[in-house]
Amino acid sequence: MPEPIEPTVETDFTFGHDEPFRLSGGGTLQPVTLRYALYGNLNEARDNAMLVCHALSGSARVGDWWPELLGPGRLFDTTRYCVIGVNVIGSCYGSTGPLSERHPGEKDSYGAAFPLVTIEDMVRSQARLLDHLGIARLKAVIGGSIGGMQALSWAVDFPDRVERCIAIGAAPLSAMALALNHLQRQAIRNDPAWLEGRYHMDQQPVAGLALARAIALCSYKSSELFDTRFARRPDRSGEDPQTSLDGRYDVAGYLDYQGEIFTPRFDANSYLVLSKAMDTFDPAGTYGADSAAWRRIRAALLLVGISSDWLFPASDVLALAERARAQGVNATYAELESSHGHDGFLADAEALARIIESHLEEETFSGQESEARSQESEDEVSGTLVLD
Amino acid sequence: MPEPIEPTVETDFTFGHDEPFRLSGGGTLQPVTLRYALYGNLNEARDNAMLVCHALSGSARVGDWWPELLGPGRLFDTTRYCVIGVNVIGSCYGSTGPLSERHPGEKDSYGAAFPLVTIEDMVRSQARLLDHLGIARLKAVIGGSIGGMQALSWAVDFPDRVERCIAIGAAPLSAMALALNHLQRQAIRNDPAWLEGRYHMDQQPVAGLALARAIALCSYKSSELFDTRFARRPDRSGEDPQTSLDGRYDVAGYLDYQGEIFTPRFDANSYLVLSKAMDTFDPAGTYGADSAAWRRIRAALLLVGISSDWLFPASDVLALAERARAQGVNATYAELESSHGHDGFLADAEALARIIESHLEEETFSGQESEARSQESEDEVSGTLVLD
Repeated sequence: MPEPIEPTVETDFTFGHDEPFRLSGGGTLQPVTLRYALYGNLNEARDNAMLVCHALSGSARVGDWWPELLGPGRLFDTTRYCVIGVNVIGSCYGSTGPLSERHPGEKDSYGAAFPLVTIEDMVRSQARLLDHLGIARLKAVIGGSIGGMQALSWAVDFPDRVERCIAIGAAPLSAMALALNHLQRQAIRNDPAWLEGRYHMDQQPVAGLALARAIALCSYKSSELFDTRFARRPDRSGEDPQTSLDGRYDVAGYLDYQGEIFTPRFDANSYLVLSKAMDTFDPAGTYGADSAAWRRIRAALLLVGISSDWLFPASDVLALAERARAQGVNATYAELESSHGHDGFLADAEALARIIESHLEEETFSGQESEARSQESEDEVSGTLVLD
Repeated sequence: MPEPIEPTVETDFTFGHDEPFRLSGGGTLQPVTLRYALYGNLNEARDNAMLVCHALSGSARVGDWWPELLGPGRLFDTTRYCVIGVNVIGSCYGSTGPLSERHPGEKDSYGAAFPLVTIEDMVRSQARLLDHLGIARLKAVIGGSIGGMQALSWAVDFPDRVERCIAIGAAPLSAMALALNHLQRQAIRNDPAWLEGRYHMDQQPVAGLALARAIALCSYKSSELFDTRFARRPDRSGEDPQTSLDGRYDVAGYLDYQGEIFTPRFDANSYLVLSKAMDTFDPAGTYGADSAAWRRIRAALLLVGISSDWLFPASDVLALAERARAQGVNATYAELESSHGHDGFLADAEALARIIESHLEEETFSGQESEARSQESEDEVSGTLVLD
């Protein structure tokens, strides 16, 4: 993994002091702070911005979690583009979230009182940041998982502000994915240290949060990867799972460790809020069947499925691409061959870069052209869409 | 679902008063009680017995959990066979388990002190019951999931006592399955009411046990089934998951309910013990690669994979059948087409009965013949194996 590059700027933008930011679920936030990072520089015309959206446990510091993709000469070329990372509202990496002061200047944080936020809300807050930065239109908005959901919401809700939308391993959650998210939240709520969300920051429900993370990791990885990496080997510490009730297999030791290193860096209430935001994502009605939402999209869409992803099966991503194209969207589907499961967008970043790169090199065209184009070749979902 | 039939006899057999029953993990039990149920009657020759082994949450009362398969004229025809169900050691349905008195006549139950038991131990205890009943050889031993593991262990460890072995949705656990079992046990251990296993029977860790059950259910069902049954619908109680942090989707309400109805009928320490026994199952070395174990088998083997099973993928069951055949075992593979996932062996019992029926009707042949036979047609794994 290459050395992550440092942001040109990393700072906060606060808005909504005078007027509450109304959330889709009915709640409000006042004010809203967004922690953001800029890599590279905005050009004079302010038309070289790329927004890179993070997943559940990510931050505005894109270079930290997608180091292979960001930097001079890389996919997100900081000599050409100004790459923007924004921590989502509800998170715990600088933007307004459950750890934030509920009333400015007071010690009391939101905690369990933090309202439900949706992917749409995250994106609307990011649009306010772009206004602030004087960016009318994004060259591209890109993300994987929850980041991909944000990218799609950008395309649906701000059609004139997005040239390209690239979403990897993202689709409305299936019933199984909703189930797994629910169980993760239950793991946190079951922890007596959760205290209905009113715990102190230094006494958070670590056991519940670690278990939630471990359940999630099973859904982020693939069975194939686990078999290759751990098989039925005993834990490296020398425990004997065949003779002791507490003895663990290697995969169990791995999951426990991942839980342990996660809890010092993540807030349990943030986990609840972001996991819930993920649940609500369904921009075009049930499973994308609502045509009106698709028809608004003017961006060139690249949807990438990950071959071994069982949380967001590649077939669901393909179905989404097909629905979009049926409504005249310039949508391309591509598949990332990866044995890493959902995490493939991070673990196989180099292969992903090659897929996205060819898409980024293509010229885009306007919405009208897109509709005409898609009617010409309706079946060619995963074909190349270069316009002469 | 047909009305379950009642056992002819349902009673206890206790052995090992004078000599401890030594367990593979190093522990001992003294004495051992087995709750068993007989359906139909043993014939004079005592050669019409079928042993039907239960899965994690089952009991000796086969009719209660496989009602479609048991009764006059059904697959386990009680007018022809004497069908035996035995509650496994470690369980909480009558056999020696964590709820049992640690020392006869004393109030103190094993609780957390219950030793690790393996599938092999369960089977060895069942062999003692057969001795007691005067049954030298079983017509067949049959089971799904952990029940299938028992059936396979019977074939490996008591080759001369089993004519046919039928195992459905059973294979050594993959790393992913080991991971999910570990997380279920963590859910229980995280519950402060667990008290390191020293809880009182009426104050067991219900929240942790319910969560464990819910995690397990996700692995027992299929994504396809959940989508068909629940999709993204809100919970039937009228909660709104799109606007409330606590609002659940239908699938979440279902899982919570399944957890709630499970905890009054199952003991958390039993859950830990049986889940661990499942982990340790690997009768022929890592993933069945040890040829010596296979070579011991003399029974005709039918391994049934379930098409939508992701806990025990059909491909793993097929691989097991192929390994067995490569070692000269008369092994047949068949696949149950079911959208129910691992639970298909219960949910699609009628379709399963048809698969097993054709196998039961075939004549069996001895081990030597079996070896010759399997060398004749090595590739024909899922072919019919009727001998002229």
